[in-house]
Amino acid sequence: MGIDGYIGWPLSLRLLREGHEVTGMDNFYTRKRVREVNSDSALPIGSMKKRISDASSSGLGEIKFFRGDVSNSEKLHEVIKATEPEAVVHLAEQRSAPYSMLGLKQAKETMVKNIVSTINLVYEVKDQVPDCHILKLGTMGEYGTPNIDIPEGFFDIEYRGRKDHLPFPKNAGSWYHWTKVHDSNNLMFANRVWNISVTDVMQGVVYGTRTEEISDPDLYTRFDTDEVWGTALNRFCAQAVAGLPITPYGKGNQARGFLSLEDSVSCLALGISKPPKKGEYRVYNQFDEYYTVNHLAKTVQEVYGEETGKIAEIKHVENPRVEMEDHYYNPENQKLKDLGYRRKRELRQEISIILEDLSRYRDRILKHRDSIMPRTLWKA
Amino acid sequence: MGIDGYIGWPLSLRLLREGHEVTGMDNFYTRKRVREVNSDSALPIGSMKKRISDASSSGLGEIKFFRGDVSNSEKLHEVIKATEPEAVVHLAEQRSAPYSMLGLKQAKETMVKNIVSTINLVYEVKDQVPDCHILKLGTMGEYGTPNIDIPEGFFDIEYRGRKDHLPFPKNAGSWYHWTKVHDSNNLMFANRVWNISVTDVMQGVVYGTRTEEISDPDLYTRFDTDEVWGTALNRFCAQAVAGLPITPYGKGNQARGFLSLEDSVSCLALGISKPPKKGEYRVYNQFDEYYTVNHLAKTVQEVYGEETGKIAEIKHVENPRVEMEDHYYNPENQKLKDLGYRRKRELRQEISIILEDLSRYRDRILKHRDSIMPRTLWKA
Repeated sequence: MGIDGYIGWPLSLRLLREGHEVTGMDNFYTRKRVREVNSDSALPIGSMKKRISDASSSGLGEIKFFRGDVSNSEKLHEVIKATEPEAVVHLAEQRSAPYSMLGLKQAKETMVKNIVSTINLVYEVKDQVPDCHILKLGTMGEYGTPNIDIPEGFFDIEYRGRKDHLPFPKNAGSWYHWTKVHDSNNLMFANRVWNISVTDVMQGVVYGTRTEEISDPDLYTRFDTDEVWGTALNRFCAQAVAGLPITPYGKGNQARGFLSLEDSVSCLALGISKPPKKGEYRVYNQFDEYYTVNHLAKTVQEVYGEETGKIAEIKHVENPRVEMEDHYYNPENQKLKDLGYRRKRELRQEISIILEDLSRYRDRILKHRDSIMPRTLWKA
Repeated sequence: MGIDGYIGWPLSLRLLREGHEVTGMDNFYTRKRVREVNSDSALPIGSMKKRISDASSSGLGEIKFFRGDVSNSEKLHEVIKATEPEAVVHLAEQRSAPYSMLGLKQAKETMVKNIVSTINLVYEVKDQVPDCHILKLGTMGEYGTPNIDIPEGFFDIEYRGRKDHLPFPKNAGSWYHWTKVHDSNNLMFANRVWNISVTDVMQGVVYGTRTEEISDPDLYTRFDTDEVWGTALNRFCAQAVAGLPITPYGKGNQARGFLSLEDSVSCLALGISKPPKKGEYRVYNQFDEYYTVNHLAKTVQEVYGEETGKIAEIKHVENPRVEMEDHYYNPENQKLKDLGYRRKRELRQEISIILEDLSRYRDRILKHRDSIMPRTLWKA
C-alpha cells in the first residue's frame, strides 16, 4: 500500500528480487499534492504502467497493481480479497508534517485519511486474512525528544516502588506525526483484541536516490526537494547541486535518526522475511545513526566541496516548526540488528551518490526552486 | 457542546444557576443511536425546546441553543462566532465503548467524529477566541489498568539514570476510549503550538439521576440502561428496580473510578470557574472513589434490599469486553481536591436516590429490557 511512493517503489523492486509475489496499491495522492505546491520529483519517474513495464523489462518480475485509496474500505476490501496477502506493508499515508500544519482542512485530511486507512486494514485483515502480517510505517518522530533514552516502543518502568512494562510516552511534533502515534495505538489495540500480527516501524528520516535494484534511471523512485514534501538531508543535497544555500532550520542542533533508502528497504524486507510471532505486536526503531541537522549540512558541504571543488553555502533560516533546538537524544536501535540488519551505506558515501544522481537533474531542481524555502509555519 | 446529553444538560442548569451565560449545541446523536438499539432513556426527557422552556420556567435562566454537529466545521464556526465564548465544554462526542466495537463502520464513525470535533474546536478557538478555555471530557479509561499508580496526566520518571516529566502512557480498552487518548494527545499538541488553554478531564464512570437543580421531573436528564449506551452502576440500579438480575461482566473484580452526577457537574463547573493559566494544558482525574464492579453490584443489592425488602439477584455474565479482570488499580485524584472539590454524595445515598427515581419508571425499563443484556462482543 503506497507502492508509488519514495519507499514503496524501491521496496517493491527488492521484494520482487527476493522472489515474493508483489501486489501494489496507490491512489497517486503524493504526485497530486506535490504538483499543488508547484514542485515535482527531482528524479523523473514515469507512470505506474511504465514503471511496472520497466521493472518487468529489467528482469525483476511482474507487479500486480490496483489503483485506489486505502481509506476507501470497499476498494481495500476488493484488493485484499483478490490478493489474500501473507503480509501487507502499509506505506499509504499522508506523509508530510508541513502539509498537515497548513490549516484545518489539511489537519483533518491527515488525521482522517491516515487513521481510517489503518483501521480499514485492521478490519480487512481480521475478517479476511487473520494470519496476515501487517508491517506499518510509523516514525521516530512519534517519540519526540524526551530527556531520557528512547527504547523501542515499550519500556520497563519503576514508579513509586511498583513495576510495569508499558508503552513509552509519545510526544509528536505535528498533526502528521500525531497520526502515526494514533495509528500505533490503534494497532496495539487491534493486536490485543484480535491477535493480529503487527510490526510497527518507528523509522528515521530516509535519504538517498538508489537501492541495489535501481540500476537504471527508468527504475528511479521519486525524490522530493520542496519544503512540504522533501526532507532535510535530501533537500540539502538538492540545494548544493542547484547552487542554492543549504538551509538548516533554526540553530540546527535538532538531532534525528537517519538511514539510507537502501537500508530502509533492506530493513522493511527483513521485517517481512522475519515476521513477528503470530499475535505479536512488534515495535522497532528503524534508523542507522542519529545526527544533528548541522552535522548533515556540514557533511553535504564537505562532500560537495571534495567532489566539485565548489563551496556550498550554509544559511540558517528561521525555524518554521515548533521544536526543541537543543536537546538530549539517545534512541535505541538494537532490535533490527538482532534480526540481522547491518548497515550497507555510510553517510558520506550515500551523499556522494545522491549528489551524482541529482547533478544530471539540476534543471529540474532549479525549475521548482521557489518551492524549496520554508513557508509553512507551525505558528501561523 | 453536547448540551442534550446525560452530563451536558445538568451542567447547563448548574452553570445557569451560577450566573453564567449558557449557549448549547447538540445534534441529538445520542437520542438517535439509543433509538436504534430499541432503547430509550429510563427517565423521560422532552424536546430541547421543551427542556429550555422548562429551565426558564423553573427560574434557572435562559439557554441559547444551536442545533448542529460539532464535527461540521462550518456549523461550529458559526456558533463560536455568534457566541464568542470564554469557555467551551466539549461533551459532544460519541461516548459508547460498545458502539465503537460493533464493526468497521462504527469504529470509523467514532474515530472520525470524535477526533474531527476536537480538531475543529481547536482551530476555531485559535482563530476566533484565542483566550477561550477548552474544557474537554476525556476518560479515566484512557489509562487502562497499569500495574503502577496512575498520576494525573503526567509523571516524573527516572529511566536509566536520567529524568523527565512526561505524559503517562495510555492503554485504552475500546476504539471509543482510544479516541479520547487521541483527543488528549491532539489537545496537548495544540496547547504546545498555539498556547490554547485546556483542561483535559480524565473522568470516571458517572452514576445518578439528579443534581441540585433537578428539582422536578421536567428537568430530568437522560438515563440509559441498555448494554450499548448505559453504564455499569446505573444499569445495575435499573436491573434491580425492574426485577431483573444485576449482571457484572466476568469476574467483576475490574476496578474503575466512579463519581455521582452531582459531583461530576460540580467538578466541571469548578473547572470553569477556576480555569487553567493562559497557555496551560491541565489534566486532572475526575472521580470520587474507585470500586470494583462486584462492590457496586453488592451495594445496589444491599440498598435495594433495605429499601424494598426484596432480593435483587446478582448473576455474572460472560465478559463481552477484552479487559483484565484482576488487576492493580491506584489512580490519583488530588488536583480537583486542591481546586476545592469536596464530594457531596456518598455512594449508598446516591444509589438510594437512583432507585427511588427509577421506581416510578419501572415500565419504561421493562419495555426496553431486551436491550439490557450484553450482545456487543469485543471478540466478534
